[in-house]
Amino acid sequence: MKKVEHIGIAVKNLKSANELFSKLFGQKSYKFEKVEREGITTSFFQIGDTKIELLEATDSDSPVAKFIEKKGEGIHHIAFEVEDIQLEMSRLEKDGFTLINKEPQKGADNKLICFLHPKSTNGVLVELCQKIK
Amino acid sequence: MKKVEHIGIAVKNLKSANELFSKLFGQKSYKFEKVEREGITTSFFQIGDTKIELLEATDSDSPVAKFIEKKGEGIHHIAFEVEDIQLEMSRLEKDGFTLINKEPQKGADNKLICFLHPKSTNGVLVELCQKIK
Repeated sequence: MKKVEHIGIAVKNLKSANELFSKLFGQKSYKFEKVEREGITTSFFQIGDTKIELLEATDSDSPVAKFIEKKGEGIHHIAFEVEDIQLEMSRLEKDGFTLINKEPQKGADNKLICFLHPKSTNGVLVELCQKIK
Repeated sequence: MKKVEHIGIAVKNLKSANELFSKLFGQKSYKFEKVEREGITTSFFQIGDTKIELLEATDSDSPVAKFIEKKGEGIHHIAFEVEDIQLEMSRLEKDGFTLINKEPQKGADNKLICFLHPKSTNGVLVELCQKIK
């Protein structure tokens, strides 16, 4: 794993959260993006080499909406950049980790992604992501 | 804020979590450290420019023990490196954020640290940290 590509934060209201995190970071969000397949709208901040991605559910059935219902707002997942997502998925599955996605999915920010089930990773929702070349 | 210095993950058992995350990251922890004042033992991994810090409570009254009791194991906090912690603390307090520590504290890994209350940061426990020169 090459780096922490981003940290996802689940928020109820993207507009007000965006104002709050702009104040916290002392900088504005540089991008908004809707990811229809995941039922979310996102806002991105860049802090050093890592992005902070605010996630608002646009669909009450989406994983982010369910997360907030169960745990409240807060840190949702950590995404690690990998060189070859298929290779990492095979390696991790062999090592006993549970993949939520059996095939890489198209995520936000021009990435191929795969989530690992938090039951196999000490309660941490881990995302693998690879840049689409 | 300069970068995501580390991400703290609350675990029940440092030994087994350490084995799990070593497999996940494909590398071993490079350091263990006990922080008496916070009632924790920690294990560090380096992923790119960011550290992953596993936190096990050594004291049932510690914030990490209470976190696990309430929310279960998982991502506990995000730490941002700052150039001047006093300056950032003043700026953030003026901007309406609630500081848990009124003065910088001595944290793990030779850092001065201050936590912001998650009630003022959308449910995210934010740590500011500055290298001790």
